[in-house]
Formats: sequence, structure tokens, C-alpha cells
Amino acid sequence: MKKVGIVMGSDSDLPVIRKAVTVLEEFGVPYEVHIYSAHRTPDEAAAFSREAASNGFGAIIAAAGMAAHLAGAIAANTVLPVIGIPCRSSNLDGLDALLSTVQMPTGIPVATVAIDGGANAAILACQILAVGDAALSERLTARRKKDAEKVLQKDADVISSLAKL
Amino acid sequence: MKKVGIVMGSDSDLPVIRKAVTVLEEFGVPYEVHIYSAHRTPDEAAAFSREAASNGFGAIIAAAGMAAHLAGAIAANTVLPVIGIPCRSSNLDGLDALLSTVQMPTGIPVATVAIDGGANAAILACQILAVGDAALSERLTARRKKDAEKVLQKDADVISSLAKL
Amino acid sequence: MKKVGIVMGSDSDLPVIRKAVTVLEEFGVPYEVHIYSAHRTPDEAAAFSREAASNGFGAIIAAAGMAAHLAGAIAANTVLPVIGIPCRSSNLDGLDALLSTVQMPTGIPVATVAIDGGANAAILACQILAVGDAALSERLTARRKKDAEKVLQKDADVISSLAKL
Amino acid sequence: MKKVGIVMGSDSDLPVIRKAVTVLEEFGVPYEVHIYSAHRTPDEAAAFSREAASNGFGAIIAAAGMAAHLAGAIAANTVLPVIGIPCRSSNLDGLDALLSTVQMPTGIPVATVAIDGGANAAILACQILAVGDAALSERLTARRKKDAEKVLQKDADVISSLAKL
Amino acid sequence: MKKVGIVMGSDSDLPVIRKAVTVLEEFGVPYEVHIYSAHRTPDEAAAFSREAASNGFGAIIAAAGMAAHLAGAIAANTVLPVIGIPCRSSNLDGLDALLSTVQMPTGIPVATVAIDGGANAAILACQILAVGDAALSERLTARRKKDAEKVLQKDADVISSLAKL
Amino acid sequence: MKKVGIVMGSDSDLPVIRKAVTVLEEFGVPYEVHIYSAHRTPDEAAAFSREAASNGFGAIIAAAGMAAHLAGAIAANTVLPVIGIPCRSSNLDGLDALLSTVQMPTGIPVATVAIDGGANAAILACQILAVGDAALSERLTARRKKDAEKVLQKDADVISSLAKL
Amino acid sequence: MKKVGIVMGSDSDLPVIRKAVTVLEEFGVPYEVHIYSAHRTPDEAAAFSREAASNGFGAIIAAAGMAAHLAGAIAANTVLPVIGIPCRSSNLDGLDALLSTVQMPTGIPVATVAIDGGANAAILACQILAVGDAALSERLTARRKKDAEKVLQKDADVISSLAKL
Amino acid sequence: MKKVGIVMGSDSDLPVIRKAVTVLEEFGVPYEVHIYSAHRTPDEAAAFSREAASNGFGAIIAAAGMAAHLAGAIAANTVLPVIGIPCRSSNLDGLDALLSTVQMPTGIPVATVAIDGGANAAILACQILAVGDAALSERLTARRKKDAEKVLQKDADVISSLAKL
Repeated sequence: MKKVGIVMGSDSDLPVIRKAVTVLEEFGVPYEVHIYSAHRTPDEAAAFSREAASNGFGAIIAAAGMAAHLAGAIAANTVLPVIGIPCRSSNLDGLDALLSTVQMPTGIPVATVAIDGGANAAILACQILAVGDAALSERLTARRKKDAEKVLQKDADVISSLAKL
Repeated sequence: MKKVGIVMGSDSDLPVIRKAVTVLEEFGVPYEVHIYSAHRTPDEAAAFSREAASNGFGAIIAAAGMAAHLAGAIAANTVLPVIGIPCRSSNLDGLDALLSTVQMPTGIPVATVAIDGGANAAILACQILAVGDAALSERLTARRKKDAEKVLQKDADVISSLAKL
Repeated sequence: MKKVGIVMGSDSDLPVIRKAVTVLEEFGVPYEVHIYSAHRTPDEAAAFSREAASNGFGAIIAAAGMAAHLAGAIAANTVLPVIGIPCRSSNLDGLDALLSTVQMPTGIPVATVAIDGGANAAILACQILAVGDAALSERLTARRKKDAEKVLQKDADVISSLAKL
Repeated sequence: MKKVGIVMGSDSDLPVIRKAVTVLEEFGVPYEVHIYSAHRTPDEAAAFSREAASNGFGAIIAAAGMAAHLAGAIAANTVLPVIGIPCRSSNLDGLDALLSTVQMPTGIPVATVAIDGGANAAILACQILAVGDAALSERLTARRKKDAEKVLQKDADVISSLAKL
Repeated sequence: MKKVGIVMGSDSDLPVIRKAVTVLEEFGVPYEVHIYSAHRTPDEAAAFSREAASNGFGAIIAAAGMAAHLAGAIAANTVLPVIGIPCRSSNLDGLDALLSTVQMPTGIPVATVAIDGGANAAILACQILAVGDAALSERLTARRKKDAEKVLQKDADVISSLAKL
Repeated sequence: MKKVGIVMGSDSDLPVIRKAVTVLEEFGVPYEVHIYSAHRTPDEAAAFSREAASNGFGAIIAAAGMAAHLAGAIAANTVLPVIGIPCRSSNLDGLDALLSTVQMPTGIPVATVAIDGGANAAILACQILAVGDAALSERLTARRKKDAEKVLQKDADVISSLAKL
Repeated sequence: MKKVGIVMGSDSDLPVIRKAVTVLEEFGVPYEVHIYSAHRTPDEAAAFSREAASNGFGAIIAAAGMAAHLAGAIAANTVLPVIGIPCRSSNLDGLDALLSTVQMPTGIPVATVAIDGGANAAILACQILAVGDAALSERLTARRKKDAEKVLQKDADVISSLAKL
Repeated sequence: MKKVGIVMGSDSDLPVIRKAVTVLEEFGVPYEVHIYSAHRTPDEAAAFSREAASNGFGAIIAAAGMAAHLAGAIAANTVLPVIGIPCRSSNLDGLDALLSTVQMPTGIPVATVAIDGGANAAILACQILAVGDAALSERLTARRKKDAEKVLQKDADVISSLAKL
């Protein structure tokens, strides 16, 4: 099974990445985590990306904040699907990272998820790998069902939840 | 080869979709185009999405403007990767569509590309299908090279281009 | 008397919904509360909405955050008036939910109130039901008078309030 | 049948109001149109609003741009449901009017529709009147069906539409 | 000497108003404080404004949050200069109040100061009254000098301030 | 009678200033117009401001775009009331000029009007001068009445205006 | 004399770069212009940057739109001062490029100028080179004087300019 | 060696300036810190700037919040490179200061860094001085290497860091 590469631009993004890792472990999808900065270690980021396909990766998740160039820098060096997580930092509520990640020029897309959307980035990576993996696809469908059941259980309990507020 | 589904919420999105179709034809990737509105034809949109995997689709592109719910509504009914194109409409410069498309809740990601990013949505769809298709992956790499060569050719001509302004 | 349906996309919206419930109880308007997610339980949300008119509902309140599709998804399946409450979540201060709720395409309006505006959503629902219910209309007018009196009482006390700061 | 009041803040809003009027005529709902400015003719706006219920109105639509106070000023003087249309003016793409219309304080809701959303304001007014009018409700449902059919017809023609671009 | 009227839309604005009152007391300018809501007590707000000139007011300060209509509603009923303070509330960081206050239509200006700018609103009111009052003008000039001296004292102490951080 | 000083940062602001001049001429208020840039001619701008009070000015209007420092720079050198007009330039729809003009620090207020609000800046200047000039105050009240009458005339004609669209 | 490197991400940025080139020629500062994309030709962009100092460059100007990574990618590979010009593209008015350019992480600054600010980028480059070049510094001072004189000439002509509008 | 001037508009900016000072001390670059307000002490700010070049400064850093005019006011009085730090204050997350600092008119650039970017402002100042100072340039390159090594060390430790969360 192909691996998911996870790259974050700084260790301040670890809490967001933790959510991604949790999902990948839940689905039994192999992964590798790295801290490479698009600006402080551009060569290592580019090298990781250039060799990712031949190193057995099927998709790459990149998380960064502020002028979040990491996902774009990764995407510039591979034709693997690259998933960008814009991370909120001290100012501007993540809008800077969102626009820096999603507004990519023609030719080099980044599949952008919500601000701080670590779990969804991992689910999207699984969905991409599941295009050629029926068993993984079934596990994704099963999780959907469980998610729905949780909502419906909460719906059943809503009156008592309101009472407790 | 798996097909790419393309759904737009309104025929005003046709120019954006045209760019996606052009890319898919260039790469020889089969596709099917539909106009389904998340709000005016929610059942048809959901039905298309629910049956997409069994109907041979490998990824779905959804384009919509304003309170752009289409990609999310499609994603809610399939575990296939769903790519969202936020489309600019008369007001707010596409910001409404961008936030409505990208800020999805945990469990149901939408792989969002740039505002009006029809070509990139199609390239991303190809990248997803190419995870299990070495030949397509090579065609993507070849296009990258051609894109780079075009830039370098423009770089070579830059002085005369400046003179012409 | 017709009921007000209240649907929230997630139990994180309960504090906002609590404010709506308090208002409806104050006015003696019957209601029913549900947790249905536009994305995790799209079928239940649609089914509730499709059957709402025949089940005795006169208006529906829908509250959701981020890419807040719930009100729109409800509105797509009924011609009852649908009131949308955009809820603030961790990032972007509710702007994402506001634009996702209010910028609906022609044909499917959502009556949008302020971010986190649970009380006003319920008052608006009462105002809608009061179009055909003179007694409820009088209770709304009475509340307005009480609200005004509270302001005027605070005006009378303003000097001592300032002194206490 | 109750009438819909339509108030605009300036004659520059006429094109938006024209869309509302067209919808109301289509549904056979009586209406009355006025130009009253919240700032230039506050007394006339307030008087219209105060007497609206007793003058046979069931809902009021108010359209204004910039610091769009009109809908709020109308809402402050009646318990009828007030629908606000934020209108785009020369700058800021309608964001000023949207926030000025939707962010109402507790007690005085304004049912806000999309920027320049004249047609949806009128449909929402009809939906409100239809709560107590089964025939109008059926006409709304019928229009929904026609809207859906138009989308599906466009879907059937999409390939030729793309070819024509 | 003419009085400064201070009106706030809600007692949640008291901390901002406190700053205005402190300035007016410092300058010995008479004032009167009121809580009138543009929406909950529109008649009282309008009456206060209509009679302000004949009641000895020379300028009016109006503070409100969210869809901040108060300053505009006051300005609509007087030709006295009206100073608007946009107040930050729970969401959107005061941007809603700023746009609702400053984007007034031609004919009815509101002299808008910074978000939560209570002190500056009062200084501006004093500057307006000082146009015809040389003694007040001198007190304003003196305060400017003192403000400048404070800055220069801080400049003299900056090295030790940095050391203490 | 005191004069109104009008300063613009660049001759690209002339159309906005034209609207201010028209109003001042209508009210018979003397004025003087200058082009001084806060950045290109800071000394001339400061000198004009420092001497404005003794040169017979009662209020100053300052118009600028982009990082609109002009009104603040004028205000820093006088205790006369300074009215700021944020001007829209090629990008950002005037939001940059609005924030640069209105968000002044404590001690140095700028009375900010709407983006490109030339007429309102002049009306506000007249309102300030009218605090000590009953005749001017009456002319302002008369213009208000005329403005209201124009709105009411348009209201009377609204049906034929709609028909012409 | 050291050269100024000018890099743009796409030939759509040529009109902005033309303004920079005009300034550099006016000041007699040598320059070299290139088109390198951070995403389509990342190696060429990095190579240019890495060798810029040893190739005789003293500062680099980088212009790009949308998710404008170019200036950051250049800055990541050199300790020369890098000046970023955020360029407006079809949507969002340049706000995406501004945030992508200016919000750089600690360690790798980009000296950002205004949106589409080609001339100012070149002036800033000259100011940087002028730190060690008294003659260039004098030419900059002389241009300032000429700019000021132009403003003062326009000030002298302002009445006739207003009359012509 | 030339000095770096550091000016802040208020002592509330001290924590941001502390980060700049730390960097300058690390690189052994002489500096001088001042508190001068563009609005409260405009003459001192202008005087400092006018004499900066002859007083041995090679670059100036200016930090301010809200309508952040300080960097522009400094830049208006010198042809030395001026680096602007937009500082976040109570509202608007620093967006006001960013736009007030970066959107300078043609002729007077401000080299703007990220919101609250004290360290990067100092690094940029060093990069500017290093254009003519090979030893400083080497120290900058050495710091880059150390920054990269820190990232790579964190990359080596990432699994244990994730485990600790």
C-alpha cells in the first residue's frame, strides 16, 4: 500500500498534524512525518517531494501557517496529489495561510482543506488512495456510517443535552 | 480507466468548466459533465454522487458560486475524492464561494482549488487517477516539463516583451 | 398552532440553540429540536425538511458553522420559510458561516440572522407565525414594549452605572 | 390576501426591486412599492412601518446600500417579518450593506437575503404568506419544480452548450 | 457653553463611553449621557436628536455595535455634528459596526472615529466646540503638549523599558 | 465666517474634492483648496495645518487614498476638527484608505466619512461651523427638507420609474 | 555598481515590471530581468537566487500574483534583500498576493511594497544600494525634490484643475 | 559600521521591538531605539528621520499599530531604506496596520514585513547593511544554516514530539 507523506513547516503545526496522524492510524494507512520548511530548508523540502513517488508515497499532506508556501513548494516538485492544510497563526485568523495555499496558479494545484483541518486532510488522502483500493474505500464508508450514527445518537439525546446547558 | 465526473451548479459556470474539460481531453481522461444544483435539484445531485463509484467514476469535480454548497453536497454522498471549484459571481469576488467550499466540517473534506480554477481542478483529478496509473503520471510529468519550457522561453524573450509594452 | 422546527448541524451549536428555545418557550410556540448534519446525515436532514410542512411545521430554524450548508440544504427541500443562523467556529469569526448561509442562489432563499443570533432566529420564526395569529402578534408587541422599557430603565440608571465602572 | 410592502432607500435600488416585483406578480401576491430613506425621510419610513400591519401588509421587504439601515429602521417599528436586501454600491462590493443589514441586535431581527437578492426577497415574502395560504404554497412548490426542470434541461443540453463556448 | 450629548445603544457600551466621559470632565465640557437604542427605543432616540439643538447641545456622540445604526439614526434627525463610535461586539472584530457607522449616504454624514474610540470621540467633540471657544482650544493644545511630553519621556526611558521586558 | 480648508494628497482625488467644493459653494461657506501630499510634501502639509487656525480656518477636510496618512498628518498639527475622506484607488476598494484614516490613536481623532464621500465631508464641515452660526444651521436644515422632498417625489413616481426599467 | 535582479512569476506581470525598469533606468542602476515561476520552474528560480550575490546582484525584486510564493522562494535561497511586489490578478483584488508575500516566517523576510507597486520596488532597491553609494543617494534626494515640486505645481494650479472637471 | 534606527509609535510596541533588538545584538549591529509618535510628536519623528543619514544610520525600522503612519512619516523625510512593522492592536487583527504601512504611494516605499514581525525587520535591516559588508553577510548566511539545522533536528525528533502531544 502506498504511504502518505506528511510535511509541516514548523513544529508549531504539530497539534494539527496529530489529528491527521490519528486518522491515518485509524485507517491503517502507512505514513511518514517530516518537518521541512519551504523557506528554512527549501532543498530538503524539494528533495523529499521530488523523490516521493519513487519512495512509495501516493499522496502528500503539507501544513503551514502565515505566507503558507509549503504545500505549493511541495506541489511544484511532484505530480503526486498534494493536500494543503492552512494553519492559523497569531494574526489574521488563518486567512493568510488559506489564500497562500489555495490560490495556486494553473498547472500546480494544491488540494486545500479547511483552516487547521488536519483530520480532513488525512481523510482526503485516504480517499485518494482508496480510488485504487476497495478495502480502504469500504473502511471510509464504514466511518461515514459511524459518523452518521453518532449524529443521530446526539439527535436522540438533544433534549437532555439542552437541559444540561 | 476511471472517469472524472464534472458537476456545475449553474450554466453560468460553463466557462470555468470548459477549462477543466480541455485539460481532461488533453490527457485522454474520460469524463462526464452535468449541471445539477445543490438547491434546485438536490436529489439528482445526491443520486449522481451516491452512484458515482459504482458507475466508474474515480473523482468528481464540483463548481459553484455564492453560497457554494455543491461540492459539499456531492462529498456528503460519496467517499470518492471531491474537488471543489469556488466560482466568482457578481459580488464579493469569489470569497463567498471559497469559504463555502473549503471550510468543510471534519469527516467530509472537499479538495478545494483556486477561485475559478477550472484547469487546476482537472489536473488535480488527473493526479488522483495517476496514483494508480503510471502512464497518466508520465503524461502529467511531461506537461510539467512543457510548462517549464514555456516559462523559460518567455524568460529568454523578456527583453523584447518589455520593449513591446 | 404550527410548530417551529430547529435543526443544528452539530452539538457544538447547542448554546446558540438554547437561546432560540428560550424565546419559543417564552412565547408559548411549540417546537421540535434536532441535530442533523447537512454532510454527515444528509438524508435525515432532507427527509425532515421534505415532510416538515405535512408534519405541522410552519417555519424551520437551521444553525451551522464553517461552510454552513445546513440552512440551504433544508431550504432546498421545502417551501416553508427557513431561517439560517451562521455560527462562529474556531476561525474566521463566523464570516465563513455568514457567507455560506446568506449568499443563496435565486429560487431558494434563506432568511439569515446575525452570527450566533439564536434569539433573533426564534423571534423571526414567531413573527412569521404571527402573520396569521393575532394573539402571538400581540405577545411580540408586548415583548417589544418590555424591551424598550428595559432600555429606558437603564437610561434612567446610566449615571450610577458609569460611576460603578 | 395580505400585501407585501417593498421599500427601497434610493431609486438607485430600482433594478434590484424590479426583480422582486416580477416575482410577486408571477405569484399573484399584492404589493406596494415605496422609496423611503432611513436617513432622509426617517419619519415617513417609520410611519409606513408602524401602520403596515393595520394597512393589510403581511411582510415588508427593505432594500438599501452602504450603511444599510433601512431594513433595521423598518423592523424597529413593526413586528411584521422584515426582509432585508443588502445592495451593492460603488465600493466594498456590498459587504458594508450585508453587515449593516444582517448583524441586528437581539429583539429586532431582519431576515437577510443575498447581496442584490431581489428575487429571493420576494420568494421569501411569498413563503411567509404561504404559511397560512395553501394555494400560494402550491404555487411555490410548482415554481420549484419548474426551476428543477430547467436545470435538468440544461443538464441534458450541456455537451452542446460546452461546444458553443 | 454648549453640551455634548452622549448616546449609547446598549449598556454593554459603557466601558467605551466611560473613556469619553473622562475626557469631557478633564476639559470641563458639560455633557449628558443616555442609553437609547436605534431599534428598541427608536422614538426616544429620534426625539432626543430632534430636540438636541434647542436643548443646548452642540455635538452628539453615538456609540453602538454590530449593525450600528444609532449614529445614523441620530444624524437623520439633527443638523448638529454627530460623532459615531463603532463598538466591537462578540464577532467580526468591530468591522460590522465600523462599516455600519461610516458608510453613510450623501446628505447625512457621521463623523466616525476608531473602533471603541471613546476618548477620541470626546476629543473630537471638544475640537468642534472649540471652533468658537478659544479657551477650550487652548486646553486642547495644552493636552497635545502633555501627550507629546509623555511620549518624549517614554523615549528617554526606552532603554530601561526594554531591559525590563 | 471661518473658512474650510480642503487638502487632497494627489490630483487623482480631484473628482471627490469637486463634490465637496460644490456643497461649500451651495452653502456660501468660504474655502481654500490645496494639493499637499503627506509623503511628498510633508513640510507644506504640516505648515498649512499648524497655521490653519490663525489663518482663519474653522475645519479642514483631507482626502487621500491607499495608505491614507494625509488626514492624520494634518490632525497631528492642529486642534481644529479634521475630516478625513478615504479615497478608493486601483486596488482593495478603498478599504486600505478607510482603515488608514479612521483607526487613529487616542489623542488625535480624524472625523472619517464614507469612502469617496466628498459631499458628506463638506456637509459635516458646514455642520461644525454651524454650531456657532444659526443662519448656516438653518440652511442645513433647509437642504435636509429639500432632500426629503426629493425622496418623497421619487416615491410618488416609483411605479412609473419601475415601468421604465 | 551592484545590479538589481528582477524576477516575475509570469509574463502577465510585465506591466508592473515595466514601471520598475523605468525607475532603474532613470537612476542609471544596472539590472537584469527574468521570468521564473516559483512553481513551474522552481529550480531555475532557486539557482538564480543562490548565485545572485556572487553574480553581482545587490538586491532582488520579485513580483507575483495569487498565492504569490516567488519572493519567498527567492528569499529562501539568498541573504540579499528581496523586495516583493504582490500583483493583482483576476480575483480578490490582490489581497491574496499581499498576504502570501508579506506574512513571511521568522528568519526569511521579504520587503513588501504596495499591490502592483512596481515603481516603489525599484526605488526601494535603489535606496538599498544607495546605503553605500553617496551619488545614488543624491539622485534619490533629487527625485524627491522634483516629486515635491510637481505636487506644489499642481497645488498652484488646483483651482483651474477643478474648473476643468 | 552604520547603525540601525528603531522607532516605535508607542510603548505598547515594546515586545515587538524587543525581538528586533535581540536580532541586532546577535549580529553585532549597532542600533538606537526611540519612541516617537507620528501623531503626538510629528516634529521629533521628522527631525530624527531627516538627520538619520548624516547621523550614521543606514536603515530605519518603524513599528506602529492601527492607522500605522509612522513608517510612512519616517520614509517621507529620508531616502534611507525604511522598514515597517505593522503591529496588531486590540481590533482587526493587525489588518489596519498592515494596509496603512504597505500601501504607500509611488515615490516613498516602505519595506513592510509581517504583522508583529520584529525579528524579520531586524534581519532585513542586517541584509540591507550586508550589501556592502561581506562579514555581516557571512553571519547572516551562518544564521540561515543554523536555522536550517534546527528544523532538521526537529524533523529528526518529530515522532517523539508527536508522541508527547
